[in-house]
Amino acid sequence: MHEEFLRRAIQLAAENAGQGRGGPFGAVIVMNGEIIAEGANHVTTDLDPTAHAEIVAIRAACRRLGRFDLRGAAIYSSCEPCPMCLGAIYWARLDALYYAAGREDAAQAGFDDRFLYEQFALDEQKRSLPTRRIALPEAAEPFAVWLRHPGRVPY
Amino acid sequence: MHEEFLRRAIQLAAENAGQGRGGPFGAVIVMNGEIIAEGANHVTTDLDPTAHAEIVAIRAACRRLGRFDLRGAAIYSSCEPCPMCLGAIYWARLDALYYAAGREDAAQAGFDDRFLYEQFALDEQKRSLPTRRIALPEAAEPFAVWLRHPGRVPY
Repeated sequence: MHEEFLRRAIQLAAENAGQGRGGPFGAVIVMNGEIIAEGANHVTTDLDPTAHAEIVAIRAACRRLGRFDLRGAAIYSSCEPCPMCLGAIYWARLDALYYAAGREDAAQAGFDDRFLYEQFALDEQKRSLPTRRIALPEAAEPFAVWLRHPGRVPY
Repeated sequence: MHEEFLRRAIQLAAENAGQGRGGPFGAVIVMNGEIIAEGANHVTTDLDPTAHAEIVAIRAACRRLGRFDLRGAAIYSSCEPCPMCLGAIYWARLDALYYAAGREDAAQAGFDDRFLYEQFALDEQKRSLPTRRIALPEAAEPFAVWLRHPGRVPY
């Protein structure tokens, strides 16, 4: 079964690249042995740098289920998810991740996935992204508002 | 100027939490000294686990500019971005990141940002997310299709 779902993700990736709709990445989300959502990379056609296959599939699955989490489901990705997508997989509370190609394959085709993992391993000040924390006295106020709000919905 | 933009991000975060629209996080994107897009966390109201403030702001800025990158712009976030959002900031090619609160503040309010950074520092097999790579012979095919496609648009 795992191989079947991964083959579908790879098929989505190849079709997507072949039809010029975006990068060569695909993903499917499976619950109870069935694919409930599919996604392919649409960064350049949707003009959305976050429209990676995994995020497209996660958003579609949540829309379909009417929920903001995907507990009980697994994601199958044609390639190892980049850090953005790995974070999304955690936030979606998916049960498991399966993937086929690796970050080295993506790097050879010109994608930054491996570079991003290297960046994440660095201290903030050593990253290529100029980053500065400015501690303002009011910075903690949103959290106080959150904790005071009786109707807050944790996620 | 940096403080002014950060204060706006913090204001968005506090308003968002106070009005029950989502988590206590806000972000603004600035280009040429002007805010071109704003975002707040809408995970629980949009039923989208990827609708963090930074991603909402990035997507709005890209829609406004009609581009899939934000070169020449900076992002101001009420709190240190989680790994998903840091990845999105890289993919959006933003020039710089400024933030106010830190991952410790988010953790104290019950959010997983610090946990996710800890997860990213672990080998795949030691993470809490069950992960398995299944090497299939066709895994590299999407990349070959991509590299053969004369109209491919890198991002």
